[in-house]
Amino acid sequence: MKPVGVAILGLGVVGSGTYKILRDHKEFYRRTQGIDLTVECVLEINKQKALDLGIEEGRIYDNIAEVVSNPAVDIVVEVIGGVEPAKSFVLAALHSGKTVVTSNKELFCKYWHELETAARRTNAGLYFEASCVGGVPIIRTLVDGMQANVIHSLTGIINGTTNYILTRMTREGSGYQEVLKDAQALGYAEANPSADVDGYDAAYKLSILASLAFHTKVPLEKVYREGIAQISGQDIAYGDELGYVLKLLAIGKFDGNRSIEARVHPAFVRKDHPLAAVNDSFNAVYLQGDSVGDIMLYGRGAGALPTGSAIVSDVIYAATHGEAKYASFKNTEKAEVGVKFVTDFRSRYYIRFTAKDRAGVLAKVAGILGKYSISIAELVQKGEDAESVPVILITHETTELSVRSAVGKIAALDGVESVDSVIRVEG
Amino acid sequence: MKPVGVAILGLGVVGSGTYKILRDHKEFYRRTQGIDLTVECVLEINKQKALDLGIEEGRIYDNIAEVVSNPAVDIVVEVIGGVEPAKSFVLAALHSGKTVVTSNKELFCKYWHELETAARRTNAGLYFEASCVGGVPIIRTLVDGMQANVIHSLTGIINGTTNYILTRMTREGSGYQEVLKDAQALGYAEANPSADVDGYDAAYKLSILASLAFHTKVPLEKVYREGIAQISGQDIAYGDELGYVLKLLAIGKFDGNRSIEARVHPAFVRKDHPLAAVNDSFNAVYLQGDSVGDIMLYGRGAGALPTGSAIVSDVIYAATHGEAKYASFKNTEKAEVGVKFVTDFRSRYYIRFTAKDRAGVLAKVAGILGKYSISIAELVQKGEDAESVPVILITHETTELSVRSAVGKIAALDGVESVDSVIRVEG
Repeated sequence: MKPVGVAILGLGVVGSGTYKILRDHKEFYRRTQGIDLTVECVLEINKQKALDLGIEEGRIYDNIAEVVSNPAVDIVVEVIGGVEPAKSFVLAALHSGKTVVTSNKELFCKYWHELETAARRTNAGLYFEASCVGGVPIIRTLVDGMQANVIHSLTGIINGTTNYILTRMTREGSGYQEVLKDAQALGYAEANPSADVDGYDAAYKLSILASLAFHTKVPLEKVYREGIAQISGQDIAYGDELGYVLKLLAIGKFDGNRSIEARVHPAFVRKDHPLAAVNDSFNAVYLQGDSVGDIMLYGRGAGALPTGSAIVSDVIYAATHGEAKYASFKNTEKAEVGVKFVTDFRSRYYIRFTAKDRAGVLAKVAGILGKYSISIAELVQKGEDAESVPVILITHETTELSVRSAVGKIAALDGVESVDSVIRVEG
Repeated sequence: MKPVGVAILGLGVVGSGTYKILRDHKEFYRRTQGIDLTVECVLEINKQKALDLGIEEGRIYDNIAEVVSNPAVDIVVEVIGGVEPAKSFVLAALHSGKTVVTSNKELFCKYWHELETAARRTNAGLYFEASCVGGVPIIRTLVDGMQANVIHSLTGIINGTTNYILTRMTREGSGYQEVLKDAQALGYAEANPSADVDGYDAAYKLSILASLAFHTKVPLEKVYREGIAQISGQDIAYGDELGYVLKLLAIGKFDGNRSIEARVHPAFVRKDHPLAAVNDSFNAVYLQGDSVGDIMLYGRGAGALPTGSAIVSDVIYAATHGEAKYASFKNTEKAEVGVKFVTDFRSRYYIRFTAKDRAGVLAKVAGILGKYSISIAELVQKGEDAESVPVILITHETTELSVRSAVGKIAALDGVESVDSVIRVEG
């Protein structure tokens, strides 16, 4: 039986989950995979944490040099997160020829090229299934399952924290701040929630997934990003009446030629779309391929064991496949020459504004929209008896710039008190 | 660039789709996969069919010997379906050392061992992603994406024809025969629909998927099977009122030790379960792994291009991975020693009977159920004023044998005119 030694860097939530999976499935993997996986050592400064997991003292290291110089270590699992010291540790492992498995989306999306170059130099493997959408094998699917397809779009709910917050706002009619506080108390959101609620986490993942889906680097700085902090419960409620659910979507689109869109922002999704039913901390990715048509993968996007499942899946893959695998596109440094990143997206839009003088204002609004070739799919006025009334309109497909220009003009109208929300409508 | 020669056996729906994908993506695969895929020849008796697709006359063969003796052919795609002549052709290809990619679930599920033995002998690859759930990469997911998990259950809607029929019966309130006729006219069901509507197709696929999920052969004859021909629109309507949708489910369960259940039958699914929203000819597989938790894959289960997508995905996988891959469990001939196939399933049950004498009969029914330790979760009486009224009850979880025994006794009661339906309630 082939012995395979694993080192785990960092015993946080995911590191501990990974350790437990490897420990508890040793016999199972011997039987089903024909490999003998052993956690050879862990790198963890908090020694007690490791001891509490039952790890022998001699296997608890506090120095990366010890890990990479241990000849029994074949595969290094990096689950520290963030850029440093994770990056230096991963590079040290790759330089010494050890295969790396990482869940670190920020590191991977920012330094993919540097990591892959180091890996190729020593022919070490480099695996990152756990960096995107936790236990859902989305990277394997893109690389080994849908590779026959030109993928035209990828639409994902790929951040569990924001989906949890939006689901509770939708169910309970509560406000953003209130639910966020509760999510923090329950451990679903960090004390500093910015990485999640401002869309950075989703943008990291989208950069990685879109790169694989479209066969060219989609750099992080090309990903348009808006978070959920500005979302009002009022819009969720109005959307519900109109048949929509609000989600933080990560969207990648490819025209099959040179144009790519990559954007993370809140969006309304029709209730009968499969993504609308993805609730709580569940994640999903909806893909459209030119041959396979529509396909969706759904599951837990985070958590100790789901993410651990993806890590161990990569460990087993690395241990049972002969050749090291890298990105499925050539240049991980930058986008292919000629690729154009679209910023003037096409979408439908939900626009809510407060009208003071209903009689006159709607004709003017319609006039402005008409000037920008924006046609109205639906228009709803609320609270008939009040002096100031909310007006909601949903447009047919149009462009981002048209909407921004039109909204500027609408906000300046005499009969309009305020333009309160502009939310894209997708799917 | 590595040249890879493909032969396609059979230009039916899937064969033609596969040909078109390979033809239209030649440059795309050169660029993204670094391989030069060419359809070297096709085996098709109906020469005109091949000519119509634009295939040169010299590449249209009518004899398998020509295919296997062509040194330019590396990979043989079998999309004929059925056992013979597909089996002989596949064996001939494997004997000559050519990798085989097949969509043939019946052949694969019945002769897996014979095919794999032949493949191992010449070190030829043997790939069958397209045999189950069309374009959805369920086999890759089981083998390379969820292999870190002990999989405890697999619940699938894996036959498009029956899902199309049940979806229309549900939406339109139409009867089975009526929708079936329409489905046949539209090409969604075969002239002889038995393979689909009687559950054979789903049973073939479940045998394959459960074998991979549970790491032991689950022979076809161990798959319990019931079709949808007996389903009445009445039960679909009553189920709807109670919050359920009727689906033909393929269910595999594993207790983590030795017990396996494998069954295909109609079942009610709660409307808020992700499988309930899988409509028309879409398919989905819902899995529960011990680490990853719940996961679902959703997509097109059939059709020329979706199934072609899975075939070409296998072709690319075979062409770009060094070693030939076989089943992820050892003995493809028969179940592991000690495995027990459970036939006395545990489930909840929907039972509909017609009561003549309501006053007296319900107490007696409750008494019979109590005797078999079956507890009632819900009970609904319909049509209060009629002399004979339908009564519907939904049980808590119990066993198949208890229900069968109890139903026999209920049917024999004086006040019961008939027991009209017994439908399992899952998910």
